[in-house]
Amino acid sequence: MLPGPTNVPDRVMRAMMKPMISHRGPEFHALYESLTDRLKQVFQTKGDVFVLTSSGTGGAECAVSNVINPGDRVIVPVFGTFSGRLKEKILRRGGEAIEIPVKEGEAPTAEQVEEALNKKRDVKAIALVYNETSTGVTVRDLPKIGGISRKRDILLIVDAVSILGGDYLPVDEWGVDICVTGSQKCLSCPPGLAMISVSERAWKIIEETSRPYYFDLTLFREFSERRETPATPAVPLFYALEEALKMVLEEGLEERFRRHATCAKAFYRAGEALGLTSLAKEEHRSNTVIALNVPAGVDNAEVIRIMRESYGVVIEGGIGKLKKSIFRIGCMGMISEAETSVTVGALESALIDAGYSVKMGTGMEKVWQVFRSQ
Amino acid sequence: MLPGPTNVPDRVMRAMMKPMISHRGPEFHALYESLTDRLKQVFQTKGDVFVLTSSGTGGAECAVSNVINPGDRVIVPVFGTFSGRLKEKILRRGGEAIEIPVKEGEAPTAEQVEEALNKKRDVKAIALVYNETSTGVTVRDLPKIGGISRKRDILLIVDAVSILGGDYLPVDEWGVDICVTGSQKCLSCPPGLAMISVSERAWKIIEETSRPYYFDLTLFREFSERRETPATPAVPLFYALEEALKMVLEEGLEERFRRHATCAKAFYRAGEALGLTSLAKEEHRSNTVIALNVPAGVDNAEVIRIMRESYGVVIEGGIGKLKKSIFRIGCMGMISEAETSVTVGALESALIDAGYSVKMGTGMEKVWQVFRSQ
Repeated sequence: MLPGPTNVPDRVMRAMMKPMISHRGPEFHALYESLTDRLKQVFQTKGDVFVLTSSGTGGAECAVSNVINPGDRVIVPVFGTFSGRLKEKILRRGGEAIEIPVKEGEAPTAEQVEEALNKKRDVKAIALVYNETSTGVTVRDLPKIGGISRKRDILLIVDAVSILGGDYLPVDEWGVDICVTGSQKCLSCPPGLAMISVSERAWKIIEETSRPYYFDLTLFREFSERRETPATPAVPLFYALEEALKMVLEEGLEERFRRHATCAKAFYRAGEALGLTSLAKEEHRSNTVIALNVPAGVDNAEVIRIMRESYGVVIEGGIGKLKKSIFRIGCMGMISEAETSVTVGALESALIDAGYSVKMGTGMEKVWQVFRSQ
Repeated sequence: MLPGPTNVPDRVMRAMMKPMISHRGPEFHALYESLTDRLKQVFQTKGDVFVLTSSGTGGAECAVSNVINPGDRVIVPVFGTFSGRLKEKILRRGGEAIEIPVKEGEAPTAEQVEEALNKKRDVKAIALVYNETSTGVTVRDLPKIGGISRKRDILLIVDAVSILGGDYLPVDEWGVDICVTGSQKCLSCPPGLAMISVSERAWKIIEETSRPYYFDLTLFREFSERRETPATPAVPLFYALEEALKMVLEEGLEERFRRHATCAKAFYRAGEALGLTSLAKEEHRSNTVIALNVPAGVDNAEVIRIMRESYGVVIEGGIGKLKKSIFRIGCMGMISEAETSVTVGALESALIDAGYSVKMGTGMEKVWQVFRSQ
């Protein structure tokens, strides 16, 4: 129950066992086409989508290094570890990062973006983490921010690594120019691939940028004409991703988002009943990564250890300065009543084992109230 | 029988099916240590070795972007497609590439490198493809070039993607500062990982270079202290690589190199007997990628199609301007008497089917003369 990598269904694991093929031959061409068609449906875009042999971090670097030249101004709200890393990537490219200050547990708003744009001229892009995995915060103003970027003709780059496939993100409708995700989160595929969408508007800027070789999106576009990738792709993971995307589309996006939202609600309700409030304010709560505050006097590392060793459920603590102050639970991919129940049951039990005073079943009762009411 | 990806043994494929684990937990720490220990044995280095979630091309980019700052002078012999790509990576970093002219089918020599160094001052590095996959050429002067780079205190970067694990490359002994390889060639692992070694001398230069985020080797070094990778690793491929490395070390490097050399000799002898001479001159011939000239009047695409469709053996033609003029056969990884025999048998048969005049068994006879004499 980690905030990624998530559990991978057997169907997807087994797909990796298909025999090795040439990435310049007809079997690969068919696989490439199948992947691209399905990815466009999941990204909800008529633009281009490419699969990169890299982690999600590599995907975010690809986005940044294809559009940012040294000196370019980019608005980047920092509200946790991963948005901090996005800023660092911009700085390493020589970009000028205009940071929007955001309080812990909150998300940047459309008003803040508008205000930042009013203060600074010649902003080239807004780079935004849609779901901050380190704090369990989702930027609910993303569609409004998309509207602003469209109105002002500013590029919108979205890091959707821990959310795409688990919550709403119609790339074209919301005006997202470059959207990046990873294989190992809401798509329930093993880690090792990043996916990136590119809008018409983004292509114009990419062509004017000095790009590194491995992540050069114009090479991906060129090779996509023959349904190939510029360098050797991670073929077993491509097979796994094809199967994972089939499962996403068999379920349907709407149903998938509803399932994630229901399980997230169950986690938050159970947490509240147990005295573990959400780090994220209610209006910014993520449906894919649940971050719960550790109650006073409780050692989160000890609770996590008991959950793992006694009850076989693996969750995580915080990152950086939040290391000891939160629990983080992945509510992604295959998440269902079963995973939610066992996680809350194990959490309750481990809290009690660790000496925290709470009545057994307190969280579980809330979980099932949520499931029954749906 | 492609020049990569190569066939993957069942043992390695099955290793990918292990359950998904946290890349920040104890199971991964053990996997990381096992991989690192084994990689150091295969690279024959006491230096650092890291596993990157990227293809070999990404590994070569990592090497270049960690040591080359804009304006740096780098000697890069171009003698095929992949050494051309290495040059392009250097140019994209803003480096000044000093090209050594090499004739088709030949390799750069130590004398040429020495001469280039005498002509230009302030050369920072030599960037060399050890085995040029596009022409079947191996740089047999690599140990001498290593000696030159050590004597002059110039960094030596080696792209060993299609050779490490299949032919001699004692990284420390030969003075290679940064050595890159890919998972899908001589190690018989699926594609999707690159491995890179770093010498003490290289670290000093890396620390003074402005590095991109995803491929920043200092981050890999920092995270290696807790036996982790900076970003999410491709866990199933890490498992596969562990198993593949176990197989390499069970066989032993000497025995493995001998096996590759014997099969390569069988391919070259069979080719000669069939009128398919080696593109590479004898002293530059690769033991891992066999490039044979297409005889006059023969359509290589037609022969490759017949081999594939009628005899179930997949080989490749050339790349770029060599597209129609050569056959390329992978002699890597699991290559043995069986693969060599079936490939030569299928090649003979397809040549005859395509109207080429040769007596059936001509190549096969040479293959078995080689195997009997070993």
